[in-house]
Amino acid sequence: MRVAVLGTGMVGQAIAGKFRDLGHDVQVGSRAAGEGKVAFADAAAHGEVVFNCTSGAGAVDAVSAGAEHLDGKLVVDVSNPLDFSSGAPAMFTDTTDSLAERIQRAVPAARVVKSLNTINASVMVDPSSVAGDHVVFMAGDDAGAKEELRALLGEFGWPPERVIDIGDLTGARGAELYVLLWLRLMNATGSPTFNIAVNRSASASNTQ
Amino acid sequence: MRVAVLGTGMVGQAIAGKFRDLGHDVQVGSRAAGEGKVAFADAAAHGEVVFNCTSGAGAVDAVSAGAEHLDGKLVVDVSNPLDFSSGAPAMFTDTTDSLAERIQRAVPAARVVKSLNTINASVMVDPSSVAGDHVVFMAGDDAGAKEELRALLGEFGWPPERVIDIGDLTGARGAELYVLLWLRLMNATGSPTFNIAVNRSASASNTQ
Repeated sequence: MRVAVLGTGMVGQAIAGKFRDLGHDVQVGSRAAGEGKVAFADAAAHGEVVFNCTSGAGAVDAVSAGAEHLDGKLVVDVSNPLDFSSGAPAMFTDTTDSLAERIQRAVPAARVVKSLNTINASVMVDPSSVAGDHVVFMAGDDAGAKEELRALLGEFGWPPERVIDIGDLTGARGAELYVLLWLRLMNATGSPTFNIAVNRSASASNTQ
Repeated sequence: MRVAVLGTGMVGQAIAGKFRDLGHDVQVGSRAAGEGKVAFADAAAHGEVVFNCTSGAGAVDAVSAGAEHLDGKLVVDVSNPLDFSSGAPAMFTDTTDSLAERIQRAVPAARVVKSLNTINASVMVDPSSVAGDHVVFMAGDDAGAKEELRALLGEFGWPPERVIDIGDLTGARGAELYVLLWLRLMNATGSPTFNIAVNRSASASNTQ
């Protein structure tokens, strides 16, 4: 499969590396082409599926750069709208919007799914590095796009029942805002190598 | 112990009922005194510890009503700044503030701790109703107040290692904003009787 990864930071490197290890044809997009990278628009043209792994502040521009190449494509938004300008971690979105929705509005013909943004890069591509039945979320308006993503996450090592569909793309609001709690949990646990599980009723048959 | 519970909804009922079952002397505060309830200020005067279980919109006023009685007291804020006026669940705070911080500013001599707001009322007071090592968070500026709360949560059935200290009161931002994800998880799991666990590195000795 031809994969585009937008962004050259830790998340982009982890996801591009994993897809290469799995034998896929990966192009990494950056603001400027260079060593092993192409421009955002060229990566978008290459990919049958596009992972946006840019920093939040650059995400809409990065995806929009390839808008003409994204019609009908699965665009997985992994970015977070983090804003440290106040001196404390905050979001540049308010709670009635999300970065994933902004991206979807910028490229309305793409099929945007929010996912993986709640997990450290190393855990995204190696879920066995964390103990137990921890989970990854996905939110998006296109049911088919979410099932395509569930299959790709399966290649990463995520069993299908641990990929939790949290509904339409407005579900990205909660998934993004959770990152402020994630940062506190990283401090509390002393490591970014953790993730949350969703434990159910002790009397239910679907108990984890 | 003398306990004040502000609020007569499901959360207030669950917490007041649990403290009564445990043999404590509980007064429930409401906007107006009546059947089994006193005014907010009278409850605050009664309690050695105060649990704010009001709706988010009324929380600052409810706690402030008893301000003169709260000096040095542990005030546990269980409320959430939910705002449904846009048609979708959102918060009336932005991501650089929290309802718990607003309450602390309104009663600066109290020792405010945010806790329990991430869990359904029934699970708050009966953690064994959910399977596994799920957790409850606490955020506050006073270390002693957090340890007092950890002991009270122990009476509810929460083992001390499952009460996660997420730092100073600004940690309430993430804990409150997580509630938007919680609402999606309730839809995904089909029940409010669930909670999250924090799973750690599979290679760490502190694996859950």
